[in-house]
Amino acid sequence: MKIKILTLFPDMFTGFIDESIIKRAIEKGVVEVSLIDIRQYSQDKHKHVDDTPCGGGAGMVMAVDVVDRCIKANTNEHSHIVMMTPQGETYNQKKALELSKLDELVLLCGHYEGFDERIRSYVDEEVSIGDFVLTGGEIAAMVISDSVIRLLDHAIRKESHMEDSFSIGLLEYPQYTRPIEYDGMRVPDVLLSGNHKNIETFRKKESLRRTYKKRPDLLNKYKLNKEEEKLLKEIIEEEKV
Amino acid sequence: MKIKILTLFPDMFTGFIDESIIKRAIEKGVVEVSLIDIRQYSQDKHKHVDDTPCGGGAGMVMAVDVVDRCIKANTNEHSHIVMMTPQGETYNQKKALELSKLDELVLLCGHYEGFDERIRSYVDEEVSIGDFVLTGGEIAAMVISDSVIRLLDHAIRKESHMEDSFSIGLLEYPQYTRPIEYDGMRVPDVLLSGNHKNIETFRKKESLRRTYKKRPDLLNKYKLNKEEEKLLKEIIEEEKV
Repeated sequence: MKIKILTLFPDMFTGFIDESIIKRAIEKGVVEVSLIDIRQYSQDKHKHVDDTPCGGGAGMVMAVDVVDRCIKANTNEHSHIVMMTPQGETYNQKKALELSKLDELVLLCGHYEGFDERIRSYVDEEVSIGDFVLTGGEIAAMVISDSVIRLLDHAIRKESHMEDSFSIGLLEYPQYTRPIEYDGMRVPDVLLSGNHKNIETFRKKESLRRTYKKRPDLLNKYKLNKEEEKLLKEIIEEEKV
Repeated sequence: MKIKILTLFPDMFTGFIDESIIKRAIEKGVVEVSLIDIRQYSQDKHKHVDDTPCGGGAGMVMAVDVVDRCIKANTNEHSHIVMMTPQGETYNQKKALELSKLDELVLLCGHYEGFDERIRSYVDEEVSIGDFVLTGGEIAAMVISDSVIRLLDHAIRKESHMEDSFSIGLLEYPQYTRPIEYDGMRVPDVLLSGNHKNIETFRKKESLRRTYKKRPDLLNKYKLNKEEEKLLKEIIEEEKV
């Protein structure tokens, strides 16, 4: 897969690209990440990329002509262009899976107070990572790249994402590791029992319990099987006490 | 304000801290950001920070003792400790505002498949930036730091965030800048008219229109004044056509 990031701040990605999973995925050839500096597509001698808003108001607006030239020079008919904007569709794990199947993903990051509205006509999709405001699209592009790259073949072990929160529609069950006892808190006995069936039931039930308690909205969308229905009934009784 | 980031990958923050608004805010003394490497609190000679999950399963789990020592060494009674986890409360602009009023914000980033469950007992709050899975909490910590720092006094001009998407509960109105005409698309005449009242009404109406079309969930929570009620009626009629 190819990921191209169009940005005014390519250096912001230094740590992101040189560390951890992304670095390994690049080294393995699973993904190729390029950073493209939008500013080099400015034709003005001061390399301006923005201007004051028509109609007045605070801040600067990124210019349509510069961004359009940058997009045209770095995409082809196979590119899928996603613009980072608080106005886009809210990003989630389903969208991450969808984007991970593309050959070429282009992420357009805006900075300053906004984009010229006409830039929207050059992108395939607008995505928001949440209902909060960032100084620019760069961190949002890292969120998308990271969540997509970890889903690519061989980037991480397959079993790892089978158990992720959201991947099956429930929050993940509680995890424990050594020391068995710490600061008066002990690992639940069932996890030390060696009884795999009981461990599996415990995990399924605790996964359901925390989704029920913390994110009932996810549970409403989840299709329970017979065993899960029974477990959920037990949980509801237990939580009443 | 002080922000302390507890992480296994402090180098991931290099670009984030050396660029743009965060750098300027640090230079102005508006915020002090420290990166603390959790690994230095491992007492094992190989500096392990994780171990296999009790009860079996894929991946590694971050150890409670190492994280507890790291937290104890870097916090005091004034610290507010936030853990980055997909299981936390969903982050939004309201939470950003709330966190921006703190004296000391501590962001705990996990990596690998998860945290030992007992770590939750050492934090004040658990936050998720959205319903997607990342390789670790580092990018989530950047999201939170960036959205909080830009709200601090003097970090950016005040008028800038009055007009942000979400800050007033609506999506931002469309912005335009030069060139006036580009690729067959023209800046709306009203924005070039110099009539401030008309410009204001246009912006308010387009802000309502896009919230109505793209994020009706936000509009349901928004309290319309009389003028806005009238504009919304017009929009509903116009969008029917």
